[in-house]
Amino acid sequence: MSKTKTKIVKPKPISGFPEWLPEQRAVELAWIDHIRAVFESYGFVNIETPAVEAVEILAAKGGDTDKEIYALRRLQGEESEPARMALHYDLTVPLARYVATHYNDLTFPFKRYQIQKAWRGERPQEGRFREFLQCDVDVIDNEELSIEFDAELPAIIFEIVDGLKIGPVAIHINNRKILQGFYRGLGVPDQVAAIRIVDKLDKIGPDNVAKLLREELGLSAPIAGQCLALAEIKTVDTSFVTRVQELGITNETLEEGLQELELVMDRLSHLPQGAVLADLAIARGFDYYTGTVYEGKLKDYPDYPTVFAGGRYRDLVGSYLNRKLPGVGISIGLTRIIAKLFKENRLQLGRRSPSHVLVAVLPGADMAKAREVGRTLRRRGINTEVYHQPAKLAKQIKYADRKQIPYVWFPASDEQPDHQVKALSSGKQISVDLADWRPEE
Amino acid sequence: MSKTKTKIVKPKPISGFPEWLPEQRAVELAWIDHIRAVFESYGFVNIETPAVEAVEILAAKGGDTDKEIYALRRLQGEESEPARMALHYDLTVPLARYVATHYNDLTFPFKRYQIQKAWRGERPQEGRFREFLQCDVDVIDNEELSIEFDAELPAIIFEIVDGLKIGPVAIHINNRKILQGFYRGLGVPDQVAAIRIVDKLDKIGPDNVAKLLREELGLSAPIAGQCLALAEIKTVDTSFVTRVQELGITNETLEEGLQELELVMDRLSHLPQGAVLADLAIARGFDYYTGTVYEGKLKDYPDYPTVFAGGRYRDLVGSYLNRKLPGVGISIGLTRIIAKLFKENRLQLGRRSPSHVLVAVLPGADMAKAREVGRTLRRRGINTEVYHQPAKLAKQIKYADRKQIPYVWFPASDEQPDHQVKALSSGKQISVDLADWRPEE
Repeated sequence: MSKTKTKIVKPKPISGFPEWLPEQRAVELAWIDHIRAVFESYGFVNIETPAVEAVEILAAKGGDTDKEIYALRRLQGEESEPARMALHYDLTVPLARYVATHYNDLTFPFKRYQIQKAWRGERPQEGRFREFLQCDVDVIDNEELSIEFDAELPAIIFEIVDGLKIGPVAIHINNRKILQGFYRGLGVPDQVAAIRIVDKLDKIGPDNVAKLLREELGLSAPIAGQCLALAEIKTVDTSFVTRVQELGITNETLEEGLQELELVMDRLSHLPQGAVLADLAIARGFDYYTGTVYEGKLKDYPDYPTVFAGGRYRDLVGSYLNRKLPGVGISIGLTRIIAKLFKENRLQLGRRSPSHVLVAVLPGADMAKAREVGRTLRRRGINTEVYHQPAKLAKQIKYADRKQIPYVWFPASDEQPDHQVKALSSGKQISVDLADWRPEE
Repeated sequence: MSKTKTKIVKPKPISGFPEWLPEQRAVELAWIDHIRAVFESYGFVNIETPAVEAVEILAAKGGDTDKEIYALRRLQGEESEPARMALHYDLTVPLARYVATHYNDLTFPFKRYQIQKAWRGERPQEGRFREFLQCDVDVIDNEELSIEFDAELPAIIFEIVDGLKIGPVAIHINNRKILQGFYRGLGVPDQVAAIRIVDKLDKIGPDNVAKLLREELGLSAPIAGQCLALAEIKTVDTSFVTRVQELGITNETLEEGLQELELVMDRLSHLPQGAVLADLAIARGFDYYTGTVYEGKLKDYPDYPTVFAGGRYRDLVGSYLNRKLPGVGISIGLTRIIAKLFKENRLQLGRRSPSHVLVAVLPGADMAKAREVGRTLRRRGINTEVYHQPAKLAKQIKYADRKQIPYVWFPASDEQPDHQVKALSSGKQISVDLADWRPEE
């Protein structure tokens, strides 16, 4: 054979670009279907944007993100030209561009979800991917956006994560107005810097946060202590309001934030105890957020990264449109979480074939009759494959077994006047009626 | 307002990258769901491969395709480095790489479908896109692949296109062995060149094909005439066999091709008359194909491009593995066809919201009660949104109307002891039971 002379080069996977086996992909697809169904049950529409945007749109944010952008140029003929297009690194920038482009065709409040890949040229490492599936949900309105949406999103996300059967979730909620107003009321001059420092509480602990607040912002020890006292407030109900008031600071922005968070917590009181907590330490790094902020954690996996995060922002579209479009959104890092669960074998994988039934074709059997049985079962909603050629029974059983197809069907024939079905799990074979039989789920 | 001072730059769409409004995307999603369901009903598994492959894998084919490959480099820091990754331009090369990478984890025959974007740096023009959604189905086996799969694929594709409700489809089928064997039997020295010329029959007509066969291949007029006579055979049943035999050429490869095509046509005889035809003019340009070839056309739109195409190939994985993996596959150009149907307004668009019901919240109404109604309806499988704040009825009706939500729900209250539902199409408002009511489809 000439083939053996060819140099065999087994292709290596590219690191940071995860790829699943069919039985894993079946789980991912089931997740996506579930997520879609929940979003649509709340009236959210799906959109999909191109993988690419103009470079000036993606790079507009400046900062570190620019380094991670994958630019596109044709392999031949454009090597040396400046790139004009690049892959999107999140779904928020594309949403802003989409809303600006189609503004006149959309009805506001615009409630959309989007489940797509995004790309970042990061150094690959545990839990970080260069290509990852992101599920975003946002509500955008014209000029004003009802605070009720800040309460609706966590309810939706709770239903989604709950339905994935990966254990209980804790949704930590805060409102940046509380932090800003409190710090302002305390006399902290640079409130944004203070928020950034307190945001590190989880990683570096209270002593280091207090130290940074004193050293970097020049705050007195009692003031730094007040900042920490606020961050330590975590309640599963609206009692956080009294706890903040007990700290004795008054400020208009603080009051606004407390009222907003109180309404959000109140609306979510139908969720199981502990699913939602007011957590005044949560800040989300981005200055982008201006009100409610969210962070989601799996309670069973405290070492896992944030499962989802988001918040409210003052204006989605910036300079694209001559109007203000406030929004609130949450983004679920689907690849991040599913990859970790796969790696730790914590997910029940799908079957290796969607077929419920393999129609056996024994030596000498009529292929056309077997196909007719297949068509009948499929019309009845039963996924059915017909073995692709007459072959020995053992071979077909082995095939069904390997593909985890639970039933093997033996069509009626001259020698066997009735249809028979063998359940591979029990080995039992029984006579059945083609028009009535159903697989057990 | 400071906003009016900012320069407003409305982002332009990038040509060749189609993007749909929510009501169009709803149609595309419904298509994808249907396609998935049909493939899975035949036991095909879904896989998804990364958007990128190593450049050497994509560029291996050489030729014109290389010019259309979009290479990836980070926007900052890698501008001048040679690209190592590029976006895939089809789903066949990624399949080959996937099968080689995961060979030991797959069960053969490996029956997979894949619905993903692909990218080509073409000059954008009518019906050509730089980003497009492709639906591929292939069966790959080890060393030998049953001819039965050549017959199964068109049956699957027929069911898919039939279910899209875009009019009748005609699946043209040929077998390259017929062409090759016939030409060889005729004494045509370069059979591949002859196939390429006859493949132009549709575009340039029989006279020009005959001329090219004479001038470029030096064939005599009677031989060129025989080539054309073969290409003119189109039958809706297996009668093509007799018609070919009447041309008086015998050759072993020809016989093999006739037998294969006869079996395929025979297996498809349950499909509606005219859905499938043996069309001996079909060749598919690629030399890649070695047996059965397919081309699909919409009968109602004769000027439309091919809706799907494919065929059988001798070996999928080439030099990746030290074994031969023959396959047969069909690829549906989903974006191509849906874009044209959208453009010509030939598709019934989806609703602008997936909601069946909008729960109205009148001034002074209890938001929490309205949300409870929403939860109950959703639990009953009815997509429901709750209006986001107390507002005048007219405003909420207008919102429902714009979003094409068919029903507005008025929760029971002190003033109105029963739940009521208004159907926007008729304007009728009736008292209903929250536990029983269902929307009409």
